[in-house]
Amino acid sequence: MSKPKVLLVLYEGKDHARQEPKLLGCIENELGIRDFVESYGYELVSTTSKDPVGSSEVDKHLEDAEVVITTPFYPAYITKERIAEAPKLKICITAGVGSDHVDLNAANERKITVAEVTGSNVVSVAEHVVMTILDLVRNFVPAHEQAMAGGWDIAAVAKDTYDLEDKVVATVGCGRIGYRVLERLVAFNPKKLLYYDYQDLPAAAAEKINKASELFNGKGDILHRVEKLEDMLSQADVVTINCPLHEGSKGLFNKEMISHMKDGAWLVNTARGAICIEQDVADAVTLGKLRGYGGDVWYPQPAPDSHPWRHFRNKYGGGNAMTPHVSGTSLDAQARYAAGVKELLRAYFEKTFDYEPQHLIVIDGDYATKAYGNRK
Amino acid sequence: MSKPKVLLVLYEGKDHARQEPKLLGCIENELGIRDFVESYGYELVSTTSKDPVGSSEVDKHLEDAEVVITTPFYPAYITKERIAEAPKLKICITAGVGSDHVDLNAANERKITVAEVTGSNVVSVAEHVVMTILDLVRNFVPAHEQAMAGGWDIAAVAKDTYDLEDKVVATVGCGRIGYRVLERLVAFNPKKLLYYDYQDLPAAAAEKINKASELFNGKGDILHRVEKLEDMLSQADVVTINCPLHEGSKGLFNKEMISHMKDGAWLVNTARGAICIEQDVADAVTLGKLRGYGGDVWYPQPAPDSHPWRHFRNKYGGGNAMTPHVSGTSLDAQARYAAGVKELLRAYFEKTFDYEPQHLIVIDGDYATKAYGNRK
Repeated sequence: MSKPKVLLVLYEGKDHARQEPKLLGCIENELGIRDFVESYGYELVSTTSKDPVGSSEVDKHLEDAEVVITTPFYPAYITKERIAEAPKLKICITAGVGSDHVDLNAANERKITVAEVTGSNVVSVAEHVVMTILDLVRNFVPAHEQAMAGGWDIAAVAKDTYDLEDKVVATVGCGRIGYRVLERLVAFNPKKLLYYDYQDLPAAAAEKINKASELFNGKGDILHRVEKLEDMLSQADVVTINCPLHEGSKGLFNKEMISHMKDGAWLVNTARGAICIEQDVADAVTLGKLRGYGGDVWYPQPAPDSHPWRHFRNKYGGGNAMTPHVSGTSLDAQARYAAGVKELLRAYFEKTFDYEPQHLIVIDGDYATKAYGNRK
Repeated sequence: MSKPKVLLVLYEGKDHARQEPKLLGCIENELGIRDFVESYGYELVSTTSKDPVGSSEVDKHLEDAEVVITTPFYPAYITKERIAEAPKLKICITAGVGSDHVDLNAANERKITVAEVTGSNVVSVAEHVVMTILDLVRNFVPAHEQAMAGGWDIAAVAKDTYDLEDKVVATVGCGRIGYRVLERLVAFNPKKLLYYDYQDLPAAAAEKINKASELFNGKGDILHRVEKLEDMLSQADVVTINCPLHEGSKGLFNKEMISHMKDGAWLVNTARGAICIEQDVADAVTLGKLRGYGGDVWYPQPAPDSHPWRHFRNKYGGGNAMTPHVSGTSLDAQARYAAGVKELLRAYFEKTFDYEPQHLIVIDGDYATKAYGNRK
C-alpha cells in the first residue's frame, strides 16, 4: 500500500534558494518540512506546476493527496473541480494568510478543513501597507527614478509630493491587518482614522488607538467606525483595503465605488487583487480621479505582463506603487509560517486536531471565522 | 537712491509651476512673497543662477543685498568669500531647515543673522526617513521594478526582504527630526530604539516613547541613549542620521566608522550628504558590508550625474533608496516654510527683531542654537 500523500505547491527559488537558506518558502527548501512529514509515514510531493487547471502536476497528484499546502504568493487555485478530483483530501493548509484561492463552499460540502497560519505575516503586510501609503503620498517612485536616471529637477517631484500628516486615512476591514495598520499610523498625526467593518472593534482596541493619539498628537477621539462604505470613501485622503476576498468583496472597487472617493485620493490594496476591477483602478489613476494606487496583490497570480497594473501612471508620471505579491513572504514571515504549517500538520498527523482556533477558516462543513462573516 | 534688496534663490519650476500653484518654493512662484516684500519698500531679486561661485547672478547681486533667502534643496552656498562680497548683508534666511550652506563662522564675524524655519518640514523629513527605512528593509525598489518590468519571481525579491519589527533602530542625533522618527517607529514594535546625541532627551520626551511602547507592544524601556557612537552602531540593524552638518559631523560616516556597523545593516541619511564619505558608503553596499543606503541629501546639490550614490546596488540588485533632495519640500511643507519666511522678513523689515528663538542659528556674532553645540 502506498503512503498517504502531502502535496506542497511553492514558488521556484532557483539560484535565490541557494544564495539564501532562510528562503524557506520556495520549492527547493520546501518550508523545511520534508523530514518532519516523512517521519509521520507520509510522502511529500512538492511542485511548482499548478497551471493550467486540469493538466498540471497538481492535478496529477490530487487523486492521492490527503493534505494540500499552498501559498497566497503563488496560489494553486483549489477550485470546485479540483476538489472533485481529490477524493482523499482532508485538509488544505495555507502557508500564509488568506485562503480565498480555495473554493471554501466546495470545501464545506466535502467537510474538508481549510486552515491558515493566521498571524504569521499580519505584521509584514501591515508594514507593507504603511510603506506603500508613504511611497504614494510622498511620491517616492518618481523621485527615486530621477535619482537613478540623472538630472536634478526638484519641482518635477515636489509638485506631486505631500505629507501624510493631517490626512484622513480609512481602512476597509479592520481585522488583524487593518488594525495593525491603524496602530502604525497614529504617530503620523493623521486628521482622522476611519474604519469600515461588519463589527465594532473591541472597546479596548479602539481605546488604545485614541489613547496613543492623545499621547503623540495631543488629541484623542481620532478613530471612527463608518457604517456605509461610500460615506467613508468620500472623507478619506488615503484608503487601504484590508478585508478578505469573498462574495461580498469581489469587484467591490469598481468605477462606481471609486467615484465616491475624494478627487486625488490614494488607494492601497494588499488584500486581494480581485477586490478591485483592474481596468477601473488603472483608469482612475490615468484619468486623474485617483492620485495613485499601490499594493502587492493581483489576479491572477502570477500576473501576466499585460496586466494593466504594471503600466498605469498618473499625469505626473507617478502614482504606481505596485509590487509582486511579496508583502507576506519576508524572510521573517517565512520562518513564522513554516513553523505554523508544521504545527498544523502535527495536529493533523497525530489526529489530535487541536488546531489553534484562529487558524481555522472552514471545518466540519462550516465557516469557522467571522472574518468571512460579511461575505454575503 | 535705490531700494534695499532682498535676494531670493530658488529652484526652477518650469511647467511644473504652472501645473501646480501650490508649488511655492520654485522661482516662478517666489514663495508668494513678492507683493509682501515690495510693500515694505524693498526690491525683490529672484534667481536660479547660483553657480559657479564668483560669476553667477547671486554674486552679481550680493553687493546690494541686505537679505538673502535660500533653500537646502537647491542651495546657494554662502561662503566666506561671498560674505566678503556682501557688505550690506544683514540676514540669511533658509526657507526650510538646515543652514549649513551658509558659512556660520564667517556670518558670526560679520554679525549677520542666520535664521531658518524650524519645524516647517521636520515632520516631512521624519516621514521620509520612515518611508526610506521601510523601502530598504522591505526591499521595495527591486519589487517595484519587477512589477513594472514584467515577470513574476517572488524568490528574487523575498530573499532580501525583511520585517522592520524586532529590529534595533538607532538615530544619530535626536533633535526635532530624530525624535519624530522615533515616535513614528514605536508602533512597529522594534527590539530597541537607540539614540546618540550631545545631550539627554528631556525626561518627558523619553518617557513618552517608552509609554507608547508599553501601550503598543506591551514592553516599556525600549529607548536608550548610547554614549559612544561606535557602540551604538555595533548594535543597530538600521541607523538613521538626523544631526546637523558641522565640523564634528562632516565625513563622520567613512569606511572606518561604517566598519563598526553590523554586517547587513541599513543606513539612512536625510540630514546632509557631506556627513557621509560618498564613495565609502557606495562601496559598503556594493561589497556587502551594508545591505542598503537611502536618503535624499547629496553634496554638492544638484548632484552630478556621476555621483556614486546614483548607481550603487547591493549584490541582489537592491539596497539603493536614494531620491533627490525633496523630503522637506512637499507641498504641505512649502506652505509652512513660505509662511515662516514671511514672518521672519516682517520681524526684520519692521525692526522689531522678534524672531522665534528656535528659528535662530546665529545672531549677534554667536551661535543661538544648541543643535550646533557639539560641532567641535
